[in-house]
Amino acid sequence: MTFKHRHLLGIEPLAPSDITTLLDLADDYVTLNRTAKHSDTLAGLTQINMFFENSTRTQASFEIAGKRLGADVMNMAMQASSIKKGETLIDTAMTLNAMHPDLLVVRHPQSGAVDLLAQKVNCAVLNAGDGRHEHPTQALLDALTIRRAKGRLHRLSIAICGDIAHSRVARSNIMLLGKMENRIRLIAPPTLMPSGIEEFGVEVFDDMAKGLKDVDVVMMLRLQKERMDGGFIPSEREYYHRFGLDSEKLAHAKPDAIVMHPGPMNRGVEIDGTLADDINRSVIQEQVEMGVAVRMAAMDLLAQNLRAERAAA
Amino acid sequence: MTFKHRHLLGIEPLAPSDITTLLDLADDYVTLNRTAKHSDTLAGLTQINMFFENSTRTQASFEIAGKRLGADVMNMAMQASSIKKGETLIDTAMTLNAMHPDLLVVRHPQSGAVDLLAQKVNCAVLNAGDGRHEHPTQALLDALTIRRAKGRLHRLSIAICGDIAHSRVARSNIMLLGKMENRIRLIAPPTLMPSGIEEFGVEVFDDMAKGLKDVDVVMMLRLQKERMDGGFIPSEREYYHRFGLDSEKLAHAKPDAIVMHPGPMNRGVEIDGTLADDINRSVIQEQVEMGVAVRMAAMDLLAQNLRAERAAA
Amino acid sequence: MTFKHRHLLGIEPLAPSDITTLLDLADDYVTLNRTAKHSDTLAGLTQINMFFENSTRTQASFEIAGKRLGADVMNMAMQASSIKKGETLIDTAMTLNAMHPDLLVVRHPQSGAVDLLAQKVNCAVLNAGDGRHEHPTQALLDALTIRRAKGRLHRLSIAICGDIAHSRVARSNIMLLGKMENRIRLIAPPTLMPSGIEEFGVEVFDDMAKGLKDVDVVMMLRLQKERMDGGFIPSEREYYHRFGLDSEKLAHAKPDAIVMHPGPMNRGVEIDGTLADDINRSVIQEQVEMGVAVRMAAMDLLAQNLRAERAAA
Repeated sequence: MTFKHRHLLGIEPLAPSDITTLLDLADDYVTLNRTAKHSDTLAGLTQINMFFENSTRTQASFEIAGKRLGADVMNMAMQASSIKKGETLIDTAMTLNAMHPDLLVVRHPQSGAVDLLAQKVNCAVLNAGDGRHEHPTQALLDALTIRRAKGRLHRLSIAICGDIAHSRVARSNIMLLGKMENRIRLIAPPTLMPSGIEEFGVEVFDDMAKGLKDVDVVMMLRLQKERMDGGFIPSEREYYHRFGLDSEKLAHAKPDAIVMHPGPMNRGVEIDGTLADDINRSVIQEQVEMGVAVRMAAMDLLAQNLRAERAAA
Repeated sequence: MTFKHRHLLGIEPLAPSDITTLLDLADDYVTLNRTAKHSDTLAGLTQINMFFENSTRTQASFEIAGKRLGADVMNMAMQASSIKKGETLIDTAMTLNAMHPDLLVVRHPQSGAVDLLAQKVNCAVLNAGDGRHEHPTQALLDALTIRRAKGRLHRLSIAICGDIAHSRVARSNIMLLGKMENRIRLIAPPTLMPSGIEEFGVEVFDDMAKGLKDVDVVMMLRLQKERMDGGFIPSEREYYHRFGLDSEKLAHAKPDAIVMHPGPMNRGVEIDGTLADDINRSVIQEQVEMGVAVRMAAMDLLAQNLRAERAAA
Repeated sequence: MTFKHRHLLGIEPLAPSDITTLLDLADDYVTLNRTAKHSDTLAGLTQINMFFENSTRTQASFEIAGKRLGADVMNMAMQASSIKKGETLIDTAMTLNAMHPDLLVVRHPQSGAVDLLAQKVNCAVLNAGDGRHEHPTQALLDALTIRRAKGRLHRLSIAICGDIAHSRVARSNIMLLGKMENRIRLIAPPTLMPSGIEEFGVEVFDDMAKGLKDVDVVMMLRLQKERMDGGFIPSEREYYHRFGLDSEKLAHAKPDAIVMHPGPMNRGVEIDGTLADDINRSVIQEQVEMGVAVRMAAMDLLAQNLRAERAAA
């Protein structure tokens, strides 16, 4: 095993071999989830999910992942609690740390907050999304979905479409897919395309027909209206007309191209509802399934490192 | 065993033998809950409670039931989450389904929503109350309470009193008690009595003295003010005077008639507080106890069918 | 073992030997939490946390404590639920009681509410804070922290500083530290000092320099602004100037005096941030760690008594 990390804070620090190790283990967990569903890999360990932003699906995915591996899992909805009483993020982290958790899953609206928190605690920290920064388990589950659908995770042509500027999902995916040597095409209206993004070795388009030309994978993004503070908010109808994925636009991609979306979907805004449900093209449900498996694999690997570190101490 | 259902969506699809099978098993779980409290019947299975309406007691009852049987149990409070972001009920269901739950417990404010959801998922679905439609585990726990208090569940004279028009509890109970060949009397002010209800073979009264005459069981209902949108809302004092249960009105029933209420009670509106606490007449606490046992039995039976189906596949 | 109580409702009913028994067992759990983390002491038992007031850290501490001991743990956030529908506290308690919990952990904004509830149920009740009355596990965790830092829990000089009038933490600590024969000094502005408090055998000061003179322990309190209904609310700057703990004021205490705070802290109001983080003086993180251990010990002892009582029945 080559995965030698203490935390999973982002895709950036991972080597291609780390990614492969994690996805290989996740494949085993896909099988477990379809059959026996429960193991004792994390038995005796305490997992705390600290969500400073609501996220039903990501929190549920981490919670199921932990419980299936036998961890003692605890959810903390942070907004309604001591944070209100003026406690700082660091105080909250230090407090939880003193309760000796082993795995801390954190979502936070501010970029970098999870990294900061990881420096203050003695356990493994998993970033479940921080501001516009990273969302590593989403990129890993997308990667596993692609690898299982396409049989490989390199030399593919992959289009990421939509609200790239506000998307940590896009950011983590661009890093992961780049590390694995794929060709990445970004498609967005100029106002939703971050400037200077070409530095990451991606191609940039503002036209779906051109951008989707012959791609193997079409990855749609959610319109993050809640993060567009005061800036440009496109009309949904106009956005759908130009950038929403439908069969007509998809016809520009390869005939066997798969369609992805991280959810929750705005049907009729980012994607046509019928296409989203078309099991011959859409792998959106598979993405959710891979999410649980990838999180189980990530927590398993981090727990192995934690136990090795403690045994050595 | 005769219980051959994939879901528990309502009382309507159940045969009398299904009901007897379930109540017999529930009797065993009453004993377990009073002694050892824990079994591994559902070990390795994932139970998700999706409540689109708040319900402390029903959710707690299902959660305790699942945990006592060793399931990995997860609660999802749905209103505060992705539903807000515009995700449809079906998308939410499909997302959870992709995480491979085995038992999905759903409460929803719209009649029929749980049936719809059950068609989209691969696991067993339990209806924990949908709109004015059904609340099958409530009817089953009422049935178990009656059977234990009266020694039988047939040829009893049972009065259901109060806000019948807005009550899924009344609807499920009328079906269950009718299937088991009891005489059902409904007592309500005309505005709270659904028209055409006589078709179900019930007798209709708008006077407590006449309706309660010689009954074995008096089942009070909650005033569902939250469901009386714009329509008739009775004054609490007037309602209590005419339809609230007190010792004087109860004197018309048989001397050993039992008093029931699904809770939470509005004391002094639907029922006199002293009578509700009188352990010689009131079985309201027993109803709550039976609730956990009935839910354990229902999940046990559905899990058996699910496992058999998977083993055969 | 001398701990012969059915409930843990407050420090008041405890004998010094009860306190010593509980702290001795908690010391063992500190070791467990630093190593294996999981035992099956409470396996098969149902623990319900009923919090009528939000409290992230106390609820998390009880939840971790229960899960590490193998209990089936359930959280109920009470404000958003049936209480709203007009159900009384007693009805809620009776309902939960009918579900056969073994351990009921209750926080409530009204003094005495937890005692009242304990009279109505068949299980062990732990007070997690009621109004201005008691918060026994906080006093016990403070005691364990002091005993481990100072090597003893008697004949120490201990200052409790700040908003004593609104603090159940102060009240429980005054009783516990008094029972163990320590010298207690209270320091507060006159408006935040309860009248007649001298009856408890404490010394009263309104000046930090005098109050902190040669003490072994400095226990700061949280300003309970949420409980100062309409009365005096000090300006934070003025309060910090006169009563906030900083190195200068701490210099009046013994050179090895430890600094405590129950959290969550208002840095720069009750305490200087740098001092709070100074691991040579501050034991604030240890307090949190001891909190989990003390709650494990309390639930273990109460469960032992419950099991003995049931075996004898």
